[in-house]
Amino acid sequence: MSNVRTDLAVEAKEIYEEQNKGKIQGVEINEYIENDMKVIDVKITNEVGERSMGKPVGKYVTIEMPEFVQYDKDVMDDVGKTLAKVLSEIVNLEKSMTALVVGLGNWNVTPDALGPKVISRLMVTRHLKELVPDSIDENIRPVCAISPGVLGLTGIETSEIVKSLCDKIKPNLIICIDALASRKTERVNRTIQIGNTGISPGSGIGNKRMEISEKTLGVPVIAIGVPTVVHAATLANDTIDLAIDEMIKQSTQGSQFYNMLKSLDKAEKEKLINEVLYPHVGELVVTPKDVDIVIDSISKVIANGINIALQPALGIEDINKYVN
Amino acid sequence: MSNVRTDLAVEAKEIYEEQNKGKIQGVEINEYIENDMKVIDVKITNEVGERSMGKPVGKYVTIEMPEFVQYDKDVMDDVGKTLAKVLSEIVNLEKSMTALVVGLGNWNVTPDALGPKVISRLMVTRHLKELVPDSIDENIRPVCAISPGVLGLTGIETSEIVKSLCDKIKPNLIICIDALASRKTERVNRTIQIGNTGISPGSGIGNKRMEISEKTLGVPVIAIGVPTVVHAATLANDTIDLAIDEMIKQSTQGSQFYNMLKSLDKAEKEKLINEVLYPHVGELVVTPKDVDIVIDSISKVIANGINIALQPALGIEDINKYVN
Amino acid sequence: MSNVRTDLAVEAKEIYEEQNKGKIQGVEINEYIENDMKVIDVKITNEVGERSMGKPVGKYVTIEMPEFVQYDKDVMDDVGKTLAKVLSEIVNLEKSMTALVVGLGNWNVTPDALGPKVISRLMVTRHLKELVPDSIDENIRPVCAISPGVLGLTGIETSEIVKSLCDKIKPNLIICIDALASRKTERVNRTIQIGNTGISPGSGIGNKRMEISEKTLGVPVIAIGVPTVVHAATLANDTIDLAIDEMIKQSTQGSQFYNMLKSLDKAEKEKLINEVLYPHVGELVVTPKDVDIVIDSISKVIANGINIALQPALGIEDINKYVN
Amino acid sequence: MSNVRTDLAVEAKEIYEEQNKGKIQGVEINEYIENDMKVIDVKITNEVGERSMGKPVGKYVTIEMPEFVQYDKDVMDDVGKTLAKVLSEIVNLEKSMTALVVGLGNWNVTPDALGPKVISRLMVTRHLKELVPDSIDENIRPVCAISPGVLGLTGIETSEIVKSLCDKIKPNLIICIDALASRKTERVNRTIQIGNTGISPGSGIGNKRMEISEKTLGVPVIAIGVPTVVHAATLANDTIDLAIDEMIKQSTQGSQFYNMLKSLDKAEKEKLINEVLYPHVGELVVTPKDVDIVIDSISKVIANGINIALQPALGIEDINKYVN
Repeated sequence: MSNVRTDLAVEAKEIYEEQNKGKIQGVEINEYIENDMKVIDVKITNEVGERSMGKPVGKYVTIEMPEFVQYDKDVMDDVGKTLAKVLSEIVNLEKSMTALVVGLGNWNVTPDALGPKVISRLMVTRHLKELVPDSIDENIRPVCAISPGVLGLTGIETSEIVKSLCDKIKPNLIICIDALASRKTERVNRTIQIGNTGISPGSGIGNKRMEISEKTLGVPVIAIGVPTVVHAATLANDTIDLAIDEMIKQSTQGSQFYNMLKSLDKAEKEKLINEVLYPHVGELVVTPKDVDIVIDSISKVIANGINIALQPALGIEDINKYVN
Repeated sequence: MSNVRTDLAVEAKEIYEEQNKGKIQGVEINEYIENDMKVIDVKITNEVGERSMGKPVGKYVTIEMPEFVQYDKDVMDDVGKTLAKVLSEIVNLEKSMTALVVGLGNWNVTPDALGPKVISRLMVTRHLKELVPDSIDENIRPVCAISPGVLGLTGIETSEIVKSLCDKIKPNLIICIDALASRKTERVNRTIQIGNTGISPGSGIGNKRMEISEKTLGVPVIAIGVPTVVHAATLANDTIDLAIDEMIKQSTQGSQFYNMLKSLDKAEKEKLINEVLYPHVGELVVTPKDVDIVIDSISKVIANGINIALQPALGIEDINKYVN
Repeated sequence: MSNVRTDLAVEAKEIYEEQNKGKIQGVEINEYIENDMKVIDVKITNEVGERSMGKPVGKYVTIEMPEFVQYDKDVMDDVGKTLAKVLSEIVNLEKSMTALVVGLGNWNVTPDALGPKVISRLMVTRHLKELVPDSIDENIRPVCAISPGVLGLTGIETSEIVKSLCDKIKPNLIICIDALASRKTERVNRTIQIGNTGISPGSGIGNKRMEISEKTLGVPVIAIGVPTVVHAATLANDTIDLAIDEMIKQSTQGSQFYNMLKSLDKAEKEKLINEVLYPHVGELVVTPKDVDIVIDSISKVIANGINIALQPALGIEDINKYVN
Repeated sequence: MSNVRTDLAVEAKEIYEEQNKGKIQGVEINEYIENDMKVIDVKITNEVGERSMGKPVGKYVTIEMPEFVQYDKDVMDDVGKTLAKVLSEIVNLEKSMTALVVGLGNWNVTPDALGPKVISRLMVTRHLKELVPDSIDENIRPVCAISPGVLGLTGIETSEIVKSLCDKIKPNLIICIDALASRKTERVNRTIQIGNTGISPGSGIGNKRMEISEKTLGVPVIAIGVPTVVHAATLANDTIDLAIDEMIKQSTQGSQFYNMLKSLDKAEKEKLINEVLYPHVGELVVTPKDVDIVIDSISKVIANGINIALQPALGIEDINKYVN
């Protein structure tokens, strides 16, 4: 069983396989290439898989974006299309049904502003369908959206806000966008995860908080997440692991040094990290220095993917006219 | 009866008095000086006053900020204190009761971002009272806050969002902050209006939309508004009025020119404006060029005033520690 | 002779023609359509033209952008290409020659931030040519760029900064980008003017300041300007003119009213404006409310046009890879 | 001799002392408390000190800011005053002499925007002294300022820009502000270094570039630096060191494990880091997540300190009126 918490199913899988040297029971994995980028489809099918992965039964699709996507408009368009394709397979919604898109995160904190930035680029139509129905094509789906803010700014659990709104406007589908933390620096701003089991806002922080999911809201919830940071404490932890692994690799098998490194207790290592490192890196995160620019680009890509998936009746040209 | 729409009670009063050359029935006015700035207290007491003012029975207090408040921290503090004093007289709330502060407007459009900017500087405490009650002084009031966004970005009426949230978290008081339009350029970013009759988001635009008020929400609603723009069409209209008045003043009384100017029909003038001017200035607004800086300062002042009024148990030094 | 100051040659021409009811001597005008948008080519050929237009002998090309260009990527691309074509005809530069692009204006004041925003999206190559010449195609032109800031923030005349830099790095061409004021609201954010006679930073403000031109710098200077505001005082002035014109049109020719309106002295009118209106609108400007979004889009269009014009060896796809 | 590169003199000293277990020759250190914060005065007095510290002969003063300075206005004021006091002792300038303040860094990249943000809050007076000398107190010093941008955006070495401007306007003193990298996470946004030996822009990147110093410019140069990031590679490196130290501490002295850890070659460790870690963290930095807010506050503090130091004739109240 994995005791390492990660927001990403592909990371949970990697960690499990590393720790257990074997295939996971109750988990089906399917990899393929779409528009030149790798898509990994992880299906957790039963309770055994749940326990191994630390995640509920459901579907988790990961898109690996090419490096430097923010510098190439064509690649940005391709990622948007791949996201749209993955979403379309999960979204199962008649064209008249309403979607509510929720942008989680804090718009004043750049690496956390992904959700609100996506919202500001969405094609929002619900009010037009209600106020000026004749002026809008009947094939256009009603879409509404909100950026509820974060607990520290609102004093209200995000899930409370979404729940109350959901009870009021009764959407048929909810899509949540959130910035995640990754365990690996190479995944930062390079991975999009799409899942159908909902989301627990701020779940990385360690407190139990009400999740946003079909179970709590009564409507299907699709979560789109992008890791935009690695916690500095995670980087420190993984660095030590890497260093120890490398020292083991370079020492003679069976030697005392080798054995000692091998026997380094996990608990001891965690104590080391918590006592020695954590006080200094507690609240720090690892990001690219030009995070403002990167988040901006990725929010365009994701808004585009959602717009295409939610409005199958429109061509991409029509949608581009809406995207700012 | 006034047929000119304005967000500000002091303007409604001026317009009425200009058009009717007399005191308004059903309206009590009281002016005084507080911290070197003029405070005007307008009370609409009955239906006659309602009709004359185009505003419901209630209390409307206007604070006139000194010019260039944004360049002087001491003056900013004084305005915050004056606002706090005015609010305290209206807020009638036991210390354990919860306040919900709502920042109306669009955070991506500078002159409309006042509400969301105030929210980001509020002292928000409700979650602390719920999650870590022992770590927080019992005299601190639970305060929560939200910036719901605007209809064009969310596809949901702002009042629907506030109503659903209000039903869920059941606050005892709601304070709304909104950027208004003034009829007079000299009031832009110089006036704060505090009223107890609620607010109609986007009411300037001309469509009927559900108001945010005690009537619709079942809890007292205080509205704080600051005019941050004049519509270009209003400026054009008032310019013509001014010009005609001036021409009348300079022409001989009783002359044909004088009589013609005097007889210029209101309807004709409006036709002139709508046909000749409106197509070119329709969506334009008049603002100071450095509106970014001004809005930033005013949002600090207002957040400060609200923080002081809602937390009477705290000294201003403690509150300043919370304000960013 | 025109005594109305405007930044735009097309406006100077219109004003002249209105006031003088005739064609201007010493000015050649050529209009055509390029990529569905109107391009007006104004050539001032001699001193008579200079006096009539209030602008030096030279070439002034105006591109009229379609409305709402910011909502349609294809139209944005088309405007960029049109700008590139106009620039290419004026830029006369061997491929090894260096261009310096100067973004005038204040990045903290949205309607004035156009220049600095263009700079942040330029394809800058001079340092690569110097530091890593082998890694860069020899057909790529060295381009450098600066946003010197404004007098109020720097305490240094912009022209001093540009002059000193020009003496040091010796470019073969300078391109300046500046936000202008228009006389007409319908031109705000709709017009691009390209001229070869340089620029006087802040010249609208009324003080004499050193211009940035071939005369002062010794290298050709191309100025690209976009009107992003109308001064509120201009709007007020023009509103009165419009109103008077309309009243004249509607009154019987030869009547006393007609004659009086006709005889309204220009000086009187200016007195009226300066005494009655100006105190209230002095520093105010007229802009679209969503000016942040509009300026952002136009800066992309202009950066794109400059990039294409300065790098003829590159295809538009290669250039798009550089544009953020 | 130290082979570890750091921007901060206090860090160079710590590293030296750690590696050499002894006091440094040619370096005088003086610590004291000012306004409740620690000030460390490092003087490198000769070539021996230069080699040990990896920094030229000169004065380096470090102010340790209290934690969370950004949440307390009073503490912010205190830091500003401490900085002013330190600066005043180094600035040796008659009141009529001109100071040029240079804000290094990229205003589009938050952790690098400190310099430009300070510039936008400075009290700039040189143009007033030149344009309206009679309207300004004769005791006010002429101050000018520039944010030249970064090489990647301008294509011009920052030092070239400063040099050309310096030749043109001939200031008597230059003050540079730059965001630095620290080796230690606990120093990020907590330390201000003031030095009199100039600055090498982007020197952390590893390439030789012209410095901004009295030697290259011919006028005294004071550098003010604040570490706003730790490179992720540095964090990884130091983490391994910490881990090894801790393992050594916990293993029996003289045991084989102990000896092996002791004998871990520095070169081996660097190889490990460069090959195993660096590919993944190369361009990443470690920052607080709310870096936008923190940088904003620190820029106010530094602008305030500079304003007080450069205008001894003004009281702090007058200066506060200028600070936005």
